[in-house]
Amino acid sequence: MEKQKRLRDYGIKIGSMETGALNSITDVEGVTVGHVTLSEGNMQTGVTAILPHQGNTFKEKLIASSHVINGFGKTMGTIQMEELGVLETPILLTNTLSIGTAADTLIQYMLRNNPEIGRTTGTVNPIVGECNDMLLNDVRAQHVKEEHVLYALQNTSTEFQEGSVGAGTGMLCYSLKGGIGTSSRHIPLEHGTYSIGALVLSNFGILRDLMINGRAIGQELKEALLKSWEEKDKGSVMIIVATDLPVSERQLNRIIKRSVAGLSRTGSIITHGSGEVVIGFSTATKIPHDKPADCLTIPTIHEEDMDLAFRAVGEAVEEAVLNSLVTATHVIGRDGNERPALKDLLKEFNINL
Amino acid sequence: MEKQKRLRDYGIKIGSMETGALNSITDVEGVTVGHVTLSEGNMQTGVTAILPHQGNTFKEKLIASSHVINGFGKTMGTIQMEELGVLETPILLTNTLSIGTAADTLIQYMLRNNPEIGRTTGTVNPIVGECNDMLLNDVRAQHVKEEHVLYALQNTSTEFQEGSVGAGTGMLCYSLKGGIGTSSRHIPLEHGTYSIGALVLSNFGILRDLMINGRAIGQELKEALLKSWEEKDKGSVMIIVATDLPVSERQLNRIIKRSVAGLSRTGSIITHGSGEVVIGFSTATKIPHDKPADCLTIPTIHEEDMDLAFRAVGEAVEEAVLNSLVTATHVIGRDGNERPALKDLLKEFNINL
Amino acid sequence: MEKQKRLRDYGIKIGSMETGALNSITDVEGVTVGHVTLSEGNMQTGVTAILPHQGNTFKEKLIASSHVINGFGKTMGTIQMEELGVLETPILLTNTLSIGTAADTLIQYMLRNNPEIGRTTGTVNPIVGECNDMLLNDVRAQHVKEEHVLYALQNTSTEFQEGSVGAGTGMLCYSLKGGIGTSSRHIPLEHGTYSIGALVLSNFGILRDLMINGRAIGQELKEALLKSWEEKDKGSVMIIVATDLPVSERQLNRIIKRSVAGLSRTGSIITHGSGEVVIGFSTATKIPHDKPADCLTIPTIHEEDMDLAFRAVGEAVEEAVLNSLVTATHVIGRDGNERPALKDLLKEFNINL
Amino acid sequence: MEKQKRLRDYGIKIGSMETGALNSITDVEGVTVGHVTLSEGNMQTGVTAILPHQGNTFKEKLIASSHVINGFGKTMGTIQMEELGVLETPILLTNTLSIGTAADTLIQYMLRNNPEIGRTTGTVNPIVGECNDMLLNDVRAQHVKEEHVLYALQNTSTEFQEGSVGAGTGMLCYSLKGGIGTSSRHIPLEHGTYSIGALVLSNFGILRDLMINGRAIGQELKEALLKSWEEKDKGSVMIIVATDLPVSERQLNRIIKRSVAGLSRTGSIITHGSGEVVIGFSTATKIPHDKPADCLTIPTIHEEDMDLAFRAVGEAVEEAVLNSLVTATHVIGRDGNERPALKDLLKEFNINL
Repeated sequence: MEKQKRLRDYGIKIGSMETGALNSITDVEGVTVGHVTLSEGNMQTGVTAILPHQGNTFKEKLIASSHVINGFGKTMGTIQMEELGVLETPILLTNTLSIGTAADTLIQYMLRNNPEIGRTTGTVNPIVGECNDMLLNDVRAQHVKEEHVLYALQNTSTEFQEGSVGAGTGMLCYSLKGGIGTSSRHIPLEHGTYSIGALVLSNFGILRDLMINGRAIGQELKEALLKSWEEKDKGSVMIIVATDLPVSERQLNRIIKRSVAGLSRTGSIITHGSGEVVIGFSTATKIPHDKPADCLTIPTIHEEDMDLAFRAVGEAVEEAVLNSLVTATHVIGRDGNERPALKDLLKEFNINL
Repeated sequence: MEKQKRLRDYGIKIGSMETGALNSITDVEGVTVGHVTLSEGNMQTGVTAILPHQGNTFKEKLIASSHVINGFGKTMGTIQMEELGVLETPILLTNTLSIGTAADTLIQYMLRNNPEIGRTTGTVNPIVGECNDMLLNDVRAQHVKEEHVLYALQNTSTEFQEGSVGAGTGMLCYSLKGGIGTSSRHIPLEHGTYSIGALVLSNFGILRDLMINGRAIGQELKEALLKSWEEKDKGSVMIIVATDLPVSERQLNRIIKRSVAGLSRTGSIITHGSGEVVIGFSTATKIPHDKPADCLTIPTIHEEDMDLAFRAVGEAVEEAVLNSLVTATHVIGRDGNERPALKDLLKEFNINL
Repeated sequence: MEKQKRLRDYGIKIGSMETGALNSITDVEGVTVGHVTLSEGNMQTGVTAILPHQGNTFKEKLIASSHVINGFGKTMGTIQMEELGVLETPILLTNTLSIGTAADTLIQYMLRNNPEIGRTTGTVNPIVGECNDMLLNDVRAQHVKEEHVLYALQNTSTEFQEGSVGAGTGMLCYSLKGGIGTSSRHIPLEHGTYSIGALVLSNFGILRDLMINGRAIGQELKEALLKSWEEKDKGSVMIIVATDLPVSERQLNRIIKRSVAGLSRTGSIITHGSGEVVIGFSTATKIPHDKPADCLTIPTIHEEDMDLAFRAVGEAVEEAVLNSLVTATHVIGRDGNERPALKDLLKEFNINL
Repeated sequence: MEKQKRLRDYGIKIGSMETGALNSITDVEGVTVGHVTLSEGNMQTGVTAILPHQGNTFKEKLIASSHVINGFGKTMGTIQMEELGVLETPILLTNTLSIGTAADTLIQYMLRNNPEIGRTTGTVNPIVGECNDMLLNDVRAQHVKEEHVLYALQNTSTEFQEGSVGAGTGMLCYSLKGGIGTSSRHIPLEHGTYSIGALVLSNFGILRDLMINGRAIGQELKEALLKSWEEKDKGSVMIIVATDLPVSERQLNRIIKRSVAGLSRTGSIITHGSGEVVIGFSTATKIPHDKPADCLTIPTIHEEDMDLAFRAVGEAVEEAVLNSLVTATHVIGRDGNERPALKDLLKEFNINL
């Protein structure tokens, strides 16, 4: 796998907290990520799969929560996640018009691994998030097929590419090429050191708003470019937050709500057309599908310990968005529509980050 | 179409308000309903489509709202409905594991009718609700295919069957055969007479709780039957509420929340495993997809006029559930599992409603 | 204390589950209730205090949740309860226009017992619920004073009166005299037997809708009375739910949401003007105000064990409302306005429940 | 009234949109603001009143909405605001332990102006927000009395002071002295030019996080100061948003949710202890308390016009927070606790903004 140049490789540190070993959502033990990238001519799309742990997620559910920043989006599965507070499948990301196919394939995948679903136990709640890649991808063609979804689910790893890959293949960010980005932080508490990681599918914002670590780089680029290709922001961002902090679903919800602070620091004004949804899970407790004889006991941090997690998630989301930008590559897609890569522009205009 | 014996044909009136001409959700002008029924051996399932008006719902959206009574369900599309307050597609009901196929087909249907989606305008938000028919249907087989969904969408009418049809083919209600039911009420206000109609996909409850108009008929039947086939309630109910009342999305939300009063009066205790979701829309105002030069003006009733709508929706939902029960027919399905029809039991045990 | 004739003394059992020893919210160990009744001429109001446990609630908080059935009400403190998932004060009930005084007095009470509030730790979140007793009480006069609130807080007990007492002094229910009512249920699970109790401040509904255990007693009474004093329902109901079930705040929220099933079975259509708020807490876990070195461990039941709690809370709320009705006494209040007691009407018209 | 040096007087412009004439929430026609400042020794607190229009707010209600960013706060009145979508009283801001007194006085004020409340019509829903000023103010002493609240309500104006005044007297912001700040933006649409204004009561953040227009001024100051007085953030921020945009309550809610983008750009990470609540209202439509014979007609903008409002509210909130900081004056309060003013530090360390 190609080594990509990430934000820190430009000498930029976001925030004050330490990252995990990989500076990735996969620093949370058990989490793996897989991509399918469909990039050819008018087809610029894909699928990204996040496995929350390496066991059977249906049998061993994780405490989970979702948060809608802006609901102009079609994410599936959050009603049940809110009611029951658990995640019971991998999480899929894809383009908006492929959610049906993705959901259907995820259902089949879960059925195969759990013969009792629909027989001796109930059904399963697939989680699928999406952004709209219509500028670069012929989204109407619904290029994502069952085999693509399965491939992403079956080929996950702790190391994965960022930028114009997987579900991020055709996505934009601040009018430039965006896509997949990730980052993580350590959370040192009295009773242990924990991790929190974010993975974003970035597809939002307009160039003039882009900020990198306080610098209005979007406005610098606009002047350098002397042109405007900024359409209205019709984008979205999906944010997946993983942690091994022992938290209740209420606490987890509080944590993932702070994602917006990181988004905002990159310049987002949370536009109308940008569906922005966060899904979080904690690997600290596995909730058994089958009822045990005894009560469950759920370890949770004390509320006074939340602030480090709040700071961490904001930093991780901010850096994940910026990683999606600096790693993305120039894409020419549907009808010749194209978006430049930030890294190419920086070179072209001789701008040091 | 066969004339079915409905609750009022047994001489039972629910509540005090007048029904519409058809005592159906289709009493709301413009609303039509279509079924596909897949009933053969282990396949006992189907699709029900509700068209909210006869024009292009994407171009002329309706004010809409959703309400989750119990979120153990997989209904799609409510995040955007809550954010934007509109419905822009027909509504589909089907079995739990066919929501992916249903969503995908609804997307294709919308794409065909709206070539600008994904090109000059954004994407589309499909609305799909579900219940789990696994007892009578081989739900793992995912029998619902694209052509079935399209047939339901393309063959709607103001008159339609209730009971073991469409999405209701394999559903249970109070341990008996349930499925589709409908009812409506007139709402006389100073400035006009309006209609409100409910359509339910009933799939919840256990026999001993069933009440018909205050009578504990479930307990009578249990004694008569001298046996118990009552499993844990793993069901669901989907409730679609249509009205031509001029209301804001907030007011509509208040109205549809009162569905639970009707459910409760049939005996529901809103069990854990029963996903219960209400989706409502008002045909009074069409919100244009494309921005006009001027402000919109939305007619709405004064809040003091809400009580009649509250009473009406509770009555309509209660009667719709009971209609689903009294019209349903005996079904033998997957692995010989079966559920009796209430009407057959009433005859067998000589019970007058 | 006078022994009151309660619903079960009429031979009526609501539902199928066993009650606690007192059939009262105080069957949950540690819970006590105190009333101040202000009943003289135009002053027909009061205060009811619920102590969730007998220790320092600020230092040892309880997992708590609130649920708004209809938000036409002024209950205080629920924003923080939802965010932090805990109750840290006793709960007060009073009339709508006395919530300021009640809150202020509760703050002072908490300050006295916790010298560190506002010094070495933050502030405190008082919980005050209310209903509007304006028909029988001169609510504009704001009769409730600091000393009344303190008296209720300082004189609680496991045994307490129902009906026209405390905050219920001037309240109506189904156009008759209502007020305070309570009931409880046992919840037998594999790992122990638990209790759930409800206390209601009933002030909602119109006579013709009143149902007692399936019987349309409201309509019988209307015919007997040959007159109508039914105004529009401008009432409210406050419901307090206590339990010793080990539950998370999410689980508790699911439980208290089922209160509406009990309300509905007494005939409620959840009218516009009726603020209906439920507040629940669990005594199973005490959350320390001060952060311990270690993680907390929260025992919780498995989700599959929820149905008994759901059934229990519906039954307890239903019976609590009916207890408030059958125990209430005839009150003549403001400007000679009056409401009859159900028990007097039953006698007068020779109706057996 | 003293002319204060505001952020723009330092040559700093936040964002790209034009401000209103006063760059104040009172640029929204009809809105006025009044303060009572209680500043003496251990008493460093006060009240700020916002009148949403100059008529009778109970008789002519405004479309309103609230949004909780972090619910560690005691704001009153939002349950009913969310249910009914209207504001019917002025809005009060004060310290956390004075909300009871503030609510009680606001009730009395409303009763005096509306003799029908509690007689021929229902009750009234007072709106009171708060922050905790315990460091500089002896909050336990509950210094705010009825006469103070009344004074603030009765002495409002379109021009008012910012900084250490009114409810802001004892508040902190980013470990410096904070308090009241305001700002506004014009919103040019095809069908008219509208205004949106924000008023904040700032009381949150720690110094090292403070950003002014992308500059990490907090870190510069920390180095200059060579000392640390940063406690844990136990603060809060109340944000009041006024607009004359014709919007539904749902649209207004979307707008006020974007306040968080402005907060974040000043450096907020939305800490645990910081109760952050936004309350917004639109003056475009007056909803009559008494039901008219006809439907209401509510003008609303098309959803595609929302983005300017989103950008505007973020900019106004950001600038309002910064205005609260640059106008605040050094305060020595309870037990000699003190907080420096940003403007004094800038001078002392010769820092140009």
